[in-house]
This record gives sequence, structure tokens and C-alpha cells, in this order.
Amino acid sequence: MKLRSVFSALTLTLATVFTSSQAVAEETFTLRLAETWGPNFPIFGDTTKSMARMAEEMSNGRLQIRIDSSNRHKAPFGIFDMVKAGQYDMGHSASYYWKGKVPNTLFFTSMPFGMTAQEQYAWFYYGDGMDLMQEVYEPHNMLSFPGGNTGIQMGGWFNKEINSLDDLQGLKMRIPGFAGEVFAEVGVNPTNIAPGELYTALERGTIDAVEWVGPALDLRLGFQQIADYYYTGWHEPATELQFLINKDSWEKLPADLQQILQIAMRTASYDMLIMSMHENANAWASIQSDFPDLQVRTFPDDVIQAMYDANSKLLQEAAERDDLARRIVDSQAEYLSNARAYTNISDRAYLNTMAELE
Amino acid sequence: MKLRSVFSALTLTLATVFTSSQAVAEETFTLRLAETWGPNFPIFGDTTKSMARMAEEMSNGRLQIRIDSSNRHKAPFGIFDMVKAGQYDMGHSASYYWKGKVPNTLFFTSMPFGMTAQEQYAWFYYGDGMDLMQEVYEPHNMLSFPGGNTGIQMGGWFNKEINSLDDLQGLKMRIPGFAGEVFAEVGVNPTNIAPGELYTALERGTIDAVEWVGPALDLRLGFQQIADYYYTGWHEPATELQFLINKDSWEKLPADLQQILQIAMRTASYDMLIMSMHENANAWASIQSDFPDLQVRTFPDDVIQAMYDANSKLLQEAAERDDLARRIVDSQAEYLSNARAYTNISDRAYLNTMAELE
Repeated sequence: MKLRSVFSALTLTLATVFTSSQAVAEETFTLRLAETWGPNFPIFGDTTKSMARMAEEMSNGRLQIRIDSSNRHKAPFGIFDMVKAGQYDMGHSASYYWKGKVPNTLFFTSMPFGMTAQEQYAWFYYGDGMDLMQEVYEPHNMLSFPGGNTGIQMGGWFNKEINSLDDLQGLKMRIPGFAGEVFAEVGVNPTNIAPGELYTALERGTIDAVEWVGPALDLRLGFQQIADYYYTGWHEPATELQFLINKDSWEKLPADLQQILQIAMRTASYDMLIMSMHENANAWASIQSDFPDLQVRTFPDDVIQAMYDANSKLLQEAAERDDLARRIVDSQAEYLSNARAYTNISDRAYLNTMAELE
Repeated sequence: MKLRSVFSALTLTLATVFTSSQAVAEETFTLRLAETWGPNFPIFGDTTKSMARMAEEMSNGRLQIRIDSSNRHKAPFGIFDMVKAGQYDMGHSASYYWKGKVPNTLFFTSMPFGMTAQEQYAWFYYGDGMDLMQEVYEPHNMLSFPGGNTGIQMGGWFNKEINSLDDLQGLKMRIPGFAGEVFAEVGVNPTNIAPGELYTALERGTIDAVEWVGPALDLRLGFQQIADYYYTGWHEPATELQFLINKDSWEKLPADLQQILQIAMRTASYDMLIMSMHENANAWASIQSDFPDLQVRTFPDDVIQAMYDANSKLLQEAAERDDLARRIVDSQAEYLSNARAYTNISDRAYLNTMAELE
């Protein structure tokens, strides 16, 4: 604010020297951001803080972002509405939370059997992803940007082994959203239970399985102490969080601060993928060391194939909803097909080669 | 420069209002950058241009980066010396090019059987990577930052199939650097040939195989027209380019421009990994469509194992050179081991699961 008050004091006498746009460029802007997460939520919350810090430092203090966690605004799933209405300038959340309101927001977080983080970032930034996402958010007077990736989410903690489709029939599992719908198609009984009650529910057999995120965030909930099996992932291969910005708030910023904000969000989101790799690797090493009997399993081929077919069916239904849904589903399918052909001869081949070494 | 001259004109009369640090903060800084690449070299050159554009836009023009390609400075492999001496403020190149001068620079590009791009970025930013790299460059009055990742490089174009170690004996292959030394240990005859002559050399049988980068950059050299086999990678799983900065040039920048420059480099380097994914996927689709008979192969297990053992031996020799080399080699090995255990249950498991689908 120091420089701003200097400019205010000088405005009259220096009107002929400083153009008004130069004066505006020195103004301090404060944006209020509401995040879905509680205070000090690891990785997700680190990402908003790091974005805000980068924006402040790069702008020499001219761009301030004040973060309210869910303990303040009390509306973890009200971010979309609050940013749309201008109660907050920005939000940090996940696009698929809004699918009940605006069905096409579903597609911009992660889709079952979809792209990996590298593939999906390539679709966003070098394919049609950003344009399609903007088309979905534009009518709601908001801009949406990638907000940080968790990497692939694990398939969940199970207290019995899944050897065939039969083992899934009637299985009670905490798994929300689109993946829950896919699981329901193959016989699972998906339930939603508050995070604080999940451990007890799994321990007492109220549920048979629980999907959360990955080692780093799962570790804090303690499932490794009671579950015998940890299944590999298929349903959220690259969960991307989201920064939302009210369009009026955005348009008030001068061009250099828009650019600073945009780059700060982009960097913070890439960083979250890398931070997730680091935290997951450490958490997984600790779980392996403390619980050496825990078994990692991949669902058998017939289960995976049945889930894939169920997913394709639900995706086709979603695509038939409207023209925009169709264009998004087609764009993702086409991009995935091209990108995966290359991922298979590059990263997959390499990881498999190294796994064979003694 | 506009604002700067305004400030110069006002310096005397406004000395009591503007502190000197505020005046300096509005100064325009121009940094000269020399890159190893020729003008308009794709992906690598796009990365320096994008970094410079982000820095300029975020600083509202106060930070200008002028890029000289190799056609101007005529010293593609002189970047280290020129930035060290202050002839250029910045460079864009690859750390392993300097191993003849400063052997420990070898470790900061990519190592055979080493980390993937996500794993290596995690080592740089959340492990000890940045500190260790700085320890290597500090005595040369430079800062070094990640400068963009190609993703995994392919194993090369071969005009005969490799079925066993015997097939490698005396094989003439263009493969430079540390990987060439590893190949030499298992019987290959590594040669270095100027890029412009590679196509003809492979076509005429002067060489039997050639390693270049990956589909996007290989496509331009035309190897797909003459080679029958394209081998998957092992020797550079995550080739990271490098931004170099002369320390005196860095220290002249005010804190906000240092931060802008650092974030611009970080974002441009992440972006290059994603751009490489996009360009490689497109190039690979085009190669597959135009040359459907081209065969993708992975080296057989005994070849991979022999190369891995040769690599381990050379790495141990390198580690014995000095204490810093030992600490770098140990840090990378420990980080890789932890990170890969997690990559195996996450990305690798997922990619293999999907590859089984019909």
C-alpha cells in the first residue's frame, strides 16, 4: 500500500507525467479466496498458500490473496456459488463437485480409465482442454484453471481379496461420484460416510472397503492399521483440483497482475503433482516399513474389463446429454488414444524394463 | 524504458518522496541469454522464448531477456564459459555438456536407469537436488535451474533386431556421453557423427544404429524412412535442460524480478515436459500411420541386465572421484528407490492395467 498512497498523493501534481494507466498499475489489489479444505490441509492447502505467496512476491506486494479455509466460510461445497456471486473473488476446489449443478463440470477433474497427469496437462494446455473448460464456466461468469494434481489415486483399502466379479456383489464400499456409479454397475454397494467415521466403519465391518486418495493422505486416516489389501488405481488417474475466478474480479486486474496470477496458478498446480509424488513416496515407504504384511493388489482382468465396459456405457450416456458434453467426451477420448500410444512406448516400457532388473 | 526515464527525470525533485529502493524497483533490466540451440529449434527453443515472454509480461516490461541462438554467438558448447565470465547473463543448455570441465555437472541432466521426469523434479524441488546442484555450480559463480524436460528418450533406431548380447558386439552406433560409455562396456562401438550426416550414415550402413531424442525431434531427421526397429529407452529417462545465471547478474536484480525470473524458469521447464508429451504423441501417431511396418522393440532382458551392471560399475567409479560426487550418487539412488516403489504401485500399475483392456 505504500507505493499506492505515494501515487495518490502525487496524482494531482503529476497528472501530466504519469498517465492514468501507469497510476493504476501501481495500485494494490486484494483478492479473497475460499477453499474447500479445512485449515492446514496438507498438499491441497499448501498449493493455495504457495500460489498466493508467489503472486505476492512477484508483484512486489501489489497482488494480495487472502485465503479462507472451510472453518471460516462454512461452505466447503459452496465455492462455485460464492465465486459466481462475487462473495469471493477466487476459489480452490475440484470441478467435479459441481456436477449436480452443471453436469459438464464433471469432466475437468479426472475420469475413470482416463488420462494420466502428464497426458491431461497436455490436453489442457496444448489440446482443447482449456477452451472446453472455459466454455463450461463462461455462462457462470467465471474462469477456471488447473489447480494442482494428486497423481493417480489408489483403488482403495479392502479387508478381503477380490478374485472375481462375484466378490464384488453387495460389497459395501465408500466411493463417491462417477466412480461410485461405475462400481454400482458391477454390483458394488457404494456408500458415502463422513471422513471422521471411515476408520471405525472399516474396522467394525460396517463397510468392506474404502477409497480415499493415495498413501500421503490415506496414512493420516490410519487404514493401513486395519486393512489387509491396498488396490491399485483405475478410477481417478490424475485428479486435478481447480482455481476458480470471478470474471469481474479478473477484469479489474491490470495485465501484468493477470499474468502474474495466471503463472502463479499454473506453477502451483504443476508443483502439487511433484509434491504429491514426494509425499506419496515417503508415506508409502513408511507404510511398507511399519506394515510389511499389507498386500498390494490389482483388480483381476475380468473385474477391470467389467468396470471399463460400465464406464464406457455411463460415459456414452453423459455424452448424449448435450452437444458440449459430446465434444468434451470425444476430445478426451481422441487425445487419450494418441497420448497413450506414446506413453506406452516411453514411460510404460521403461518402468516395465526396470521392474525386470535384479 | 518509459517508466525508467520518467523516474530519472523526477529523481531530483522527488528525492524526498521516492526512496532510492523504490526508484531502483522501477528500473528496466535487460539480461542477455545464450542458448546452445540454433534459431527456431523446436521445443527447446520454444522454452527459452516462453520463459522470456512470461518474465517480460509479469514484470510489465521491466525484465527483458534477449536470446542469442548459436548462429549468433557461434559457441553452442561455450555457454558454461560465457555465463561464468559474464559475457552473457544467462544460458540455456544441458548440464551434462560440461562434464569434461566439471565432472559433477554430469548428474543433473538424466542418468541411465535413473529417475523419470516426475521423480526427478521431486528430487530437485523436494529432495536434495537443487542444493547439490548449487554446490556444483557455486564455485563457478553461477546459479543453475531446471530448464525443461524432454521426457524419456527413446533407445534409438536400429536397422537390425537385437536378440542377444552377441548382436551388440561391434555394432556401430551414434550414441554420445555416459550412455555411450555404458554401451561400450557391453561391446557396442559408439561413434559421434554430426547431426546433418546421420541420415546418410544410417542409410549407407556406415553406422548400424542411431540414438537421437524421441519421436517429435527424430521425425525431422527422417530415420523412420530407413530404420526397421525403434527401441524403447533406458539411458536418459528424463533429460532435463538447464538455465544458467551469472551470480553477479542475478544479484543486481531486485527481489521481485528475481522471483519473477525464477518462477518463469520453473514454469517454462514444467511446460516443456508437457509440450514434449504433446509433440511426441503427435509425431508418433504420424510415424505409425506413415510407416506401419516399423517395429517397436525393447532390448532383451540379458542386454538390459548387462547394461545395468555396466552402468552401476561406471557410476561407482564416478562416485569415488570426490566426496560431492559420492553424495550426489547416493542421494539419487536413495531417492529413486523410494520414488520408484510408489511409481510402481501407481502409474506403472495403472498403465499396465489399461494395456490389458480390450
